[in-house]
Amino acid sequence: MRAAVAGASGYAGGELLRLLLGHPEFEIGALTAASSAGSRLGAHQPHLPQLADRVIEDTTADALAGHDVVFLALPHGHSGAVAAQLAELGEETVVVDCGADHRLADPAAWQEFYGGEHAGTWPYGLPELPGQRDVLKGAKRIAVPGCYPTSVLLALTPAFAAGLAGPDVVVVAASGTSGAGKSLKPHLLGSEVIGSVSAYGVGGVHRHTPEMEQGLSAVAGTPVRVSFTPTLAPMSRGILATCTAPAAPGVTRESLRAAYESALRDEPFVRLLPEGVWPATSMTYGANTAALQVTLDTRADRVVAVIAIDNLTKGTAGGALQSVNLALGLPEELGLPTTGVAP
Amino acid sequence: MRAAVAGASGYAGGELLRLLLGHPEFEIGALTAASSAGSRLGAHQPHLPQLADRVIEDTTADALAGHDVVFLALPHGHSGAVAAQLAELGEETVVVDCGADHRLADPAAWQEFYGGEHAGTWPYGLPELPGQRDVLKGAKRIAVPGCYPTSVLLALTPAFAAGLAGPDVVVVAASGTSGAGKSLKPHLLGSEVIGSVSAYGVGGVHRHTPEMEQGLSAVAGTPVRVSFTPTLAPMSRGILATCTAPAAPGVTRESLRAAYESALRDEPFVRLLPEGVWPATSMTYGANTAALQVTLDTRADRVVAVIAIDNLTKGTAGGALQSVNLALGLPEELGLPTTGVAP
Amino acid sequence: MRAAVAGASGYAGGELLRLLLGHPEFEIGALTAASSAGSRLGAHQPHLPQLADRVIEDTTADALAGHDVVFLALPHGHSGAVAAQLAELGEETVVVDCGADHRLADPAAWQEFYGGEHAGTWPYGLPELPGQRDVLKGAKRIAVPGCYPTSVLLALTPAFAAGLAGPDVVVVAASGTSGAGKSLKPHLLGSEVIGSVSAYGVGGVHRHTPEMEQGLSAVAGTPVRVSFTPTLAPMSRGILATCTAPAAPGVTRESLRAAYESALRDEPFVRLLPEGVWPATSMTYGANTAALQVTLDTRADRVVAVIAIDNLTKGTAGGALQSVNLALGLPEELGLPTTGVAP
Amino acid sequence: MRAAVAGASGYAGGELLRLLLGHPEFEIGALTAASSAGSRLGAHQPHLPQLADRVIEDTTADALAGHDVVFLALPHGHSGAVAAQLAELGEETVVVDCGADHRLADPAAWQEFYGGEHAGTWPYGLPELPGQRDVLKGAKRIAVPGCYPTSVLLALTPAFAAGLAGPDVVVVAASGTSGAGKSLKPHLLGSEVIGSVSAYGVGGVHRHTPEMEQGLSAVAGTPVRVSFTPTLAPMSRGILATCTAPAAPGVTRESLRAAYESALRDEPFVRLLPEGVWPATSMTYGANTAALQVTLDTRADRVVAVIAIDNLTKGTAGGALQSVNLALGLPEELGLPTTGVAP
Repeated sequence: MRAAVAGASGYAGGELLRLLLGHPEFEIGALTAASSAGSRLGAHQPHLPQLADRVIEDTTADALAGHDVVFLALPHGHSGAVAAQLAELGEETVVVDCGADHRLADPAAWQEFYGGEHAGTWPYGLPELPGQRDVLKGAKRIAVPGCYPTSVLLALTPAFAAGLAGPDVVVVAASGTSGAGKSLKPHLLGSEVIGSVSAYGVGGVHRHTPEMEQGLSAVAGTPVRVSFTPTLAPMSRGILATCTAPAAPGVTRESLRAAYESALRDEPFVRLLPEGVWPATSMTYGANTAALQVTLDTRADRVVAVIAIDNLTKGTAGGALQSVNLALGLPEELGLPTTGVAP
Repeated sequence: MRAAVAGASGYAGGELLRLLLGHPEFEIGALTAASSAGSRLGAHQPHLPQLADRVIEDTTADALAGHDVVFLALPHGHSGAVAAQLAELGEETVVVDCGADHRLADPAAWQEFYGGEHAGTWPYGLPELPGQRDVLKGAKRIAVPGCYPTSVLLALTPAFAAGLAGPDVVVVAASGTSGAGKSLKPHLLGSEVIGSVSAYGVGGVHRHTPEMEQGLSAVAGTPVRVSFTPTLAPMSRGILATCTAPAAPGVTRESLRAAYESALRDEPFVRLLPEGVWPATSMTYGANTAALQVTLDTRADRVVAVIAIDNLTKGTAGGALQSVNLALGLPEELGLPTTGVAP
Repeated sequence: MRAAVAGASGYAGGELLRLLLGHPEFEIGALTAASSAGSRLGAHQPHLPQLADRVIEDTTADALAGHDVVFLALPHGHSGAVAAQLAELGEETVVVDCGADHRLADPAAWQEFYGGEHAGTWPYGLPELPGQRDVLKGAKRIAVPGCYPTSVLLALTPAFAAGLAGPDVVVVAASGTSGAGKSLKPHLLGSEVIGSVSAYGVGGVHRHTPEMEQGLSAVAGTPVRVSFTPTLAPMSRGILATCTAPAAPGVTRESLRAAYESALRDEPFVRLLPEGVWPATSMTYGANTAALQVTLDTRADRVVAVIAIDNLTKGTAGGALQSVNLALGLPEELGLPTTGVAP
Repeated sequence: MRAAVAGASGYAGGELLRLLLGHPEFEIGALTAASSAGSRLGAHQPHLPQLADRVIEDTTADALAGHDVVFLALPHGHSGAVAAQLAELGEETVVVDCGADHRLADPAAWQEFYGGEHAGTWPYGLPELPGQRDVLKGAKRIAVPGCYPTSVLLALTPAFAAGLAGPDVVVVAASGTSGAGKSLKPHLLGSEVIGSVSAYGVGGVHRHTPEMEQGLSAVAGTPVRVSFTPTLAPMSRGILATCTAPAAPGVTRESLRAAYESALRDEPFVRLLPEGVWPATSMTYGANTAALQVTLDTRADRVVAVIAIDNLTKGTAGGALQSVNLALGLPEELGLPTTGVAP
C-alpha cells in the first residue's frame, strides 16, 4: 500500500515517515509541504537517510491522489480544505487528519476555540476508547486526537468508565517542545527552553480543552469539565500528564487499581505500571506506548492518574498508524514500536 | 557578622555560600559537613573560587559555636539534634534550619510524614505570609520553608486571604533536579533525567503536603486540603507550580487580579506579571524572586495561579537570608539578587 | 537463536536488549548482572515492557551456557574471566565482549592504560575497517570497539587508507552521559551535567587512546599518534567527534571528498552527508548509523572530519549486533535500525 | 555615569543590562534596538524586572547621545555606521563595540571573513593580553573580543608567551546556544538543539578564526595558524574550548604548569584549577571568570589547555565591562560577578 504525507517537512510528518519506513505494509509515496516544496527531504529530516533525496512537492489534491492512505500533518484549518479536494476526486483513499479540523463534534466549540467554519467530524482515532475499535474498522476518514487529549483520555477513561471519578477534572501536563511544531517563534528557541519550564495557554483557553471534555463526557455519560494547564519542558519529546478527579464515594485504592487492571489487561499499547512505580517520559521515547499509574489520594479524596506518552508517537503519528491499521483490516499492532529508546 | 554553614558541600549549602559572598554584612566562618569533612570546599563547590581552599570541618556544636548566624542545610532529622546542642552551649546565635525539622506545628503530621520525634516548631521563614514579618523580626530561630511550599503559599495566599478560593486545592509542580540534593541515586543520574519528565511522591504522600496545608489553612482561616503532585524536570534549578482552587462565588477575573495586585504591590520579591504573560523558571534563575500570574478559568470555575521560583534561591537559601535580614534588623532586601541569569 | 546478555541492568545491556527485541533471528535467553541479580528487569529498563518481568540472574558460566550468542556488557577487567569460564565449558557459543578486555593487541598498552593481566586479543568488531568483514565472518569471539574509537576510526579511515592524512591526529569528542554508564558518581548527577560541558581524561590518558592509535596505525601502515580529549555534554546519548590530521601534500577538497565517497559508497551504516551539511548527534539517535562530513582546512592545512554516532547503538550494542550478523552468516544489516529518532 | 545599550533586546544586550544593574557606578540610560523598538524591555528580558517598563527606542545617534558609555550589541556590520555617527556628534563618550566590526587589524581578513568595508581597528578589550591594560586605560573606543577568541587567547597566551608551544594550533570548542543570538533559525529551535551536539563553520571558515590567529601571533611573535571547529551544545550558556598546540622542545609538565602559574598569579578573572581538575562550564555560569587547566600530552607531544567561560559574561558583556572599568579608571574588578551560579 502506498501512503502520502502532507506536511512532510514538519515534526509530525517526520515521525509519520519514520514509522512508515518501519511498517511492513507501506511504501512511501508523495511527500508534500507548503513553504518547503521544491527542496529535498534530507534538508528537513536528516535522521531519515533513506528518504534524503526525495523531493517535496506542493500540497495539492493532484499530488496526493492515487494513494491508499493520505496523512495530513498540517496546521489546523488546512486539513478541511485539502480533504474536501480529495473527496471531489472521488477517492477511495483513507484520509487521516493529524490536525485538529475534524476532531470536535460540536461546531460551537470549534468556533470558540479555533474560529472559522467547522470542517466536520470524523471517526476519532483513539482505539482505546470504549467501542471505538468498531468505529475505526473500515473507516475511510480518521481524526487523530490531539497529543494532550490522547494522554488525558487514556489516563482517565478507566476511572470514568467504572464510575469511580467525579466530573471536576484538573489536568496539568508537561510537553516537550516538538509539540509546538517547527514554527520559528522566539519562545521556542533552544536558549529559551533549555533550563526552563514555563506555562502557557492557562485558564481554560488551550484548544485541546474541549476535546478532552468531549471524550471524557462520552465515557462518563455526564458532562465533565476539565481545568487544563499545559507547560513546556526542556525536552524534545514526551508528555507527562497529571490528571486528577474527585473520587466517587466508596472508592478504595484497591477498587481503583482493579478497575484499571481490568480495563487495560488487553490493551497492547497502554501499560499499567507495577504499584509504586510512576511514569517517566523516557519510558516511552519513540514508542507507541503509554506508561500509566493511578492512585487514590485519601487525604484530598481525589483519583490521581499520571501518564507518559511520546507526543509524536502515541500522541500523533503512532496513534494515527494504529488507527489506520484498524481501518485497513491489518493487525492493530503492526509496525508500531513498543520499546522506548532510553536512556 | 559571621555566618557558619552546616552542610556546606551540598546544593543548599553551596547556594547559601554564593549568596553570603554577595552580602555586604556577612563574613563566612565555619564550613561543616558530614562525609566530606576534611576535604576542601573547592572539590564540592567549584563555582565558588573564593572559598576553594577552605577546609570543611565536622558538623559539631564546637565548630558552629561563636557565630552570629548558623545555617543548617542538613538532611531532615539532623537539624533538631544540632540545634539542641547549640542551645546547650547557651548561644545567642540565630539558628536557621533549612531542613524540615522545625516547620510543622502538628507533631502528628511530623510523625506521619517524617517519622521519629518532632524537634519542635520555629518561626516560619516566609515573610510574605500575613503578619509574618513581625514574627521574624528579632527571631533567634527560623524554620526555612520547603521549596514547594514556598511556591504554593506565595501563589495562593492572595486568593485565600481575600476569600476568593475554596479549600479543595490541586497543585502540580515541576522541579529541577537540585531539589533532590546531591544524593547518589540512580534516578538522579544525568542519563535518566535528561530528556525526561517524571512523577514521584504522588497521592498525598509527599512530605511537603502537610506544610502546604498548614500554611494555606492559616491564611484561609479554615482547613484547606491539597492534592499535590511533584514532578522532576530536566533542569538543574527552578520550580514551576500550577496551583488551582475552586473559585468562590462571584469571583471575576477583574476582582481576582485586583486582589493579587493589592496583596503584592509592596512585596519586594514577588512579581505579578503583566496580564497575558505566564511564568517561566528562567525568569528567576539564581534570583530571590518569584514570578507569578493568576487567572480565573471560567469554564472549570477554578482560580489558576502559576508561579516560578528558583528552588535553591527563593526556595531555600535566598528565602533563608531574607528572613535572617529581618531577624537581624537589616533591610529585608539586603544582598539578595533580584535579576535572573538568562537565557 | 538464543542470546544471553551479561550486564543486563546497565545502559549497554539495555541497548542490546532493545535491539535484540527488534531482531528477527534472536530470542532473548538469560539476563545476568552482578549487584542487581535477583531483581526484575523492569526495575532497571522500564523502557522495555516486554521483558519487565524477567528475573536477572547472577553472571555465572552456568547461567550463560547453552546460548548461541553471549553478549558481555561488563566493566573492563571482568569479561576476561567470564570468557575463560565459558571456554572451559567447551562452548561453541559466539562470545561478544562489549567491554575493553579483548580490544588491544599490545599487552603493554593494556597494562599501561588498564592495569592487570591482559586477557588476550579477539577479532575487532568494526566491519568498516579494510578487510575486517572477512575476519569477522564465522568468528567465535568478537571484541566490540570502544565508542570513541568507533567514531574516530570511521571518520579517519578513508583519509588514511587513501594516504591523504599525516600521523599527527588531534581528536576532541563530546559524549552523552550514558557513555559513562550507570555508576553513581557525583559528577554524573543530572544537576551537574545539565547545562554544562566538561572535559575529562585529558592529556593522553583516556583508555580509548591506544585503541584509536592501534586502528589508525594499521590503516595508515605507519605509526599514528592521537591527541585525544573527551568531553561530557548535557545529553543522554550521542558522540560528536571532531578529528583532524595534517593534510598530505597535494590534497585538495575535491580529492579528499572523492576518497571518502569512494570508500563509503557501499557502507550500509556510514553516511557521507551532502556537501555543506555537518553532523549532529540527533541525526543518528537510536540508529546504528554514522553521519560523517569531511573538508580540507586550507588555512591550517588540515583534514577535518566530523562524525556523529549514537554511543549506545553504533558505538556499542548496534555495532556488536552488526558484527554478530557477520559472524553468524546473517545479512549484515539484519535487524539494525537506520532511522534516527528525532527531533 | 550613564550607560546606553544598543541592541537591548538581544542576549548580549540583556547580559550587559544584568551586569550594569549590579555595577555601583552606572545608571542605565537609553535602551535601543531595531525591530523591537517601541516595545517594553520586559517583553524581551523578563529576568530583569527592574527594567520591565522601560521603552526601547530606535538605535539612532540622537538616542545614544549624552551618555558616558555606549555599548553596541549589534549584528556585525552595524556598529561601524553607528560609531561613525556618534563620532560626528563630537562625543567624548566611551564607545564599546561588542560586535566584530573593530576587532581585526587586517582589512583583508575583514574582507575575507565578513565582507564589505572595514570599519577600522579599535583597542582590543582583552586586558589579560600582555601590555593590554595599558592600552585600555583611558581608551575611548573598545573592541570587545569574540567569545571564542576570548576563550582561546586566555587558554594559550601563557604557553605562547613563554615560548612553550608551536604555531600549529587545533581548537575545538563547544558553545551554548545563546552564542548564536536570538535569531529565528530552524537549527536553533529547542527541539533541534536539546539532546544534540552539532558542528558548524568547519574547515577554517568561522569568522573568529582570523581573530584568534591575530591574537596568538602577536603573543608568539611569529605567525600562528589555527584549525578551529566550533560545535553547538545543548545548553544556553557557556563555552568549553579544548586548545592544543605542539609542545616546544624540552617542555615538561612541570615547566608548563609553572609558566601558567606565573602568568595567571595576579589575574583576577582567570583561574588555573588545581592539578587534576578539569574545567566545566558550570563553574563559570553567569560569572566573569575563566576556569583553566593545562597539561602536556607526552604521548602526542602537545600542550593541551582546556578553558571554560560563560560566553555572555566573560565572553561578551562582562569582558566589555572589565575593559570599561579600565578605560574609566575604575577598579578593574568593580561590579563584576566572580561566583558562578551552580548547580
